[in-house]
Amino acid sequence: MFSKILIANRGEIAVRVIRACKEMGISTVAVYSEADREALHVSLADEAICIGGPQVKDSYLNMTAILSAAVATGAQAIHPGYGLLSENAKFAKLCESCRIVFIGPSAEIINKMGDKDEARRTMKAAGVPVVPGCDVIEDVKEAHKKADEIGYPLLCKARAGGGGRGIRLVNHTDEFENAFQTASNEALSAFGDGAVYLEKFLSPVKHIEMQIICDDHGNVVCLGERDCSVQRKNQKLIEESPSPVVTEDIRAKMVEVSTKAAKAVGYRGVGTIEFLFDRDNHYYFMEMNTRLQVEHPVTEMVTGIDLVKWQIRVASGLPLSFTQKDIKIEGAAIECRINAEDPNNNFCPSCGRITLLHVPGGPWVRFDTALYQDYFVPPFYDSMMGKLIVYAKTREEAIRKMQAALCELVIEGVEHNSELQMDILSDEEFKSGRYYTNFMSKRG
Amino acid sequence: MFSKILIANRGEIAVRVIRACKEMGISTVAVYSEADREALHVSLADEAICIGGPQVKDSYLNMTAILSAAVATGAQAIHPGYGLLSENAKFAKLCESCRIVFIGPSAEIINKMGDKDEARRTMKAAGVPVVPGCDVIEDVKEAHKKADEIGYPLLCKARAGGGGRGIRLVNHTDEFENAFQTASNEALSAFGDGAVYLEKFLSPVKHIEMQIICDDHGNVVCLGERDCSVQRKNQKLIEESPSPVVTEDIRAKMVEVSTKAAKAVGYRGVGTIEFLFDRDNHYYFMEMNTRLQVEHPVTEMVTGIDLVKWQIRVASGLPLSFTQKDIKIEGAAIECRINAEDPNNNFCPSCGRITLLHVPGGPWVRFDTALYQDYFVPPFYDSMMGKLIVYAKTREEAIRKMQAALCELVIEGVEHNSELQMDILSDEEFKSGRYYTNFMSKRG
Repeated sequence: MFSKILIANRGEIAVRVIRACKEMGISTVAVYSEADREALHVSLADEAICIGGPQVKDSYLNMTAILSAAVATGAQAIHPGYGLLSENAKFAKLCESCRIVFIGPSAEIINKMGDKDEARRTMKAAGVPVVPGCDVIEDVKEAHKKADEIGYPLLCKARAGGGGRGIRLVNHTDEFENAFQTASNEALSAFGDGAVYLEKFLSPVKHIEMQIICDDHGNVVCLGERDCSVQRKNQKLIEESPSPVVTEDIRAKMVEVSTKAAKAVGYRGVGTIEFLFDRDNHYYFMEMNTRLQVEHPVTEMVTGIDLVKWQIRVASGLPLSFTQKDIKIEGAAIECRINAEDPNNNFCPSCGRITLLHVPGGPWVRFDTALYQDYFVPPFYDSMMGKLIVYAKTREEAIRKMQAALCELVIEGVEHNSELQMDILSDEEFKSGRYYTNFMSKRG
Repeated sequence: MFSKILIANRGEIAVRVIRACKEMGISTVAVYSEADREALHVSLADEAICIGGPQVKDSYLNMTAILSAAVATGAQAIHPGYGLLSENAKFAKLCESCRIVFIGPSAEIINKMGDKDEARRTMKAAGVPVVPGCDVIEDVKEAHKKADEIGYPLLCKARAGGGGRGIRLVNHTDEFENAFQTASNEALSAFGDGAVYLEKFLSPVKHIEMQIICDDHGNVVCLGERDCSVQRKNQKLIEESPSPVVTEDIRAKMVEVSTKAAKAVGYRGVGTIEFLFDRDNHYYFMEMNTRLQVEHPVTEMVTGIDLVKWQIRVASGLPLSFTQKDIKIEGAAIECRINAEDPNNNFCPSCGRITLLHVPGGPWVRFDTALYQDYFVPPFYDSMMGKLIVYAKTREEAIRKMQAALCELVIEGVEHNSELQMDILSDEEFKSGRYYTNFMSKRG
């Protein structure tokens, strides 16, 4: 087991990882930007090193500075958290060359799952259902013929795409050729690669993701699903486990498929396989995230498994102590992301000093945060200030618990979205469980 | 179900009850003393009424003021919390006469269990093992003969005793008659009742208590045990569930005995049956607490049952939705009481303004408290400021989690005992699980 870990992240996830390390008897090294001198993760860690200016490119994405800090402090491993360098194959490779364990999968797997077309082909070959469509086609006439076979609406997607660029929705055959060319041209100029593939456009769908964890000894365990369909502009707002529409039978099949997928790519560590899930309970591979997810706590609550501790253990080479049959999904967990943004002003990000903070508590209420009273929320980083997580015997009770907890939460000094979260929780469509990724846009 | 409940208590337990009510959609009425205007329970409740001066006799023990507040606000029930009026039969009776539900057992049961000699005889008749000894004897010579039969050391205990008064330890037959007379005289002057009974003095023993919950429909469920053997001057400091020395077989027997005991007295609500538990795994009834206990959270963590919600449900006449066979004790939970007192200065109580508060968090860490930053801890009440509760798969992991959580806890402005709690957690005897009620006095 490692005796010292550097955490290459900030905010609540850095705090989360430091706490796990403390419980495991592992020393911790925090890194921080000049804007984060007063951050909670800095004071909780055993050591802390400033790695650069406030902008992430100068600090939290500054690979050389982070690796130097790890070498200087004698850290044996780096936990990247989520976002930032967590899915950066180059960084994983650099860690390896410095003989520091990158807590995550190999650079090769990160690359493989980062290329959307390759990920899709790999999963298809492994027998995982993918969205109906076809691989990259160069000739526009041939593509048009294929498109007519697939049927409309469909998506033209750039192989090298990302961040919503190089994607075009086509509603009718007449629009196809124009859209295909536009997507290809956009991809060429944005990514230097004009290759485009086709996918049927499915709507309405849920975003259902499966949590997996794999050790170095060939063991793969799937910890059930999370329903992350409450999204605004592809940003998740509320996540829950189990999904209110996933029955035990469907779960068993999705667990099987996800395990097969993880084995097919020789996965190591914690990872998430995202699916589109339609109203007929069909599910299609969307992408794989090769890191710890923001929403991992809901899985922890319903399985009793501490994902961060296990992520560290398997990264150190330890085998999993549980098998698939030990996993029982019990009760219901919900997470609401508390963001420093103003829902009444186009979700404009907010920053400033926290003049009053009251955190809800009591049984099965958890608030993962790096906030404290008098903390100054800096303007340079992601707007998420905390994750309010509740757990109860049933989904209905969990919703009521979340409502009570949100009522109790007081954060003064910055704008935030807790009232919006209250509104969502009392929305009949949300309460019914049959809500889809268009839920937020329908609300307007 | 009730639509409005008055909480006749303060501090963390008032907050705990208010939270449960909020989740159940029940309105809450807080009562407070003049010293508690700024208390958290006052701001969390839907309504709040000042009931008198800072001294408990003028406010939290002021039955008339509390009942007037309940009548004035239209509360249908009163939750007494623990301590204060929670085991006051007269108050339970007064509630009844005002047609307000006292959330607890009937005045009759409170009285029955409050009389130590009667409780002992009731339990003995129900087949519950009691400490070897004999019922009240008046004649000193006859008592001496009985004492020689029982063997030494033994205790002379006043029937009407309480708070450690009217108890004498006798180590040898030569000391008996003098001790018997002293106990009797002390009891006569303190309680107006000189009756004394004899009990074998057992040492070393553990304090093991069984949690029960009973509805109005004849259902009795026992939620396993708590080990509360870390005590200083009869005040519990650390509680855990399960007990490290109680095997599944012993638990099954203790559950059976406790259920029998609850049925024998026709119990209603949540209650606790306390046992002395010796090194040979023999257990003897000590007393029954007819209220929610401070340490109820450790039972909640290992059973998944919300005791406060169920206490309210059964008080309103609802039946339990679970039976004995649904109860599984899983994992290990520990609670450390955080008291405003100075262990380095004879545990002198401390009060003052909280200048800095940082509460630990993360998965399965719970801090039940009414503290907030800038709160002034008043000098009039119990010194307990909060209860730090952790839950993990194993006792070893729970201890490490508690150590990490205690390290993270910051309370500045008053003296407190978190360092003492750290010392206890790293004590080899505590870690072994084989610690007894003499643990703290042995440490000196």
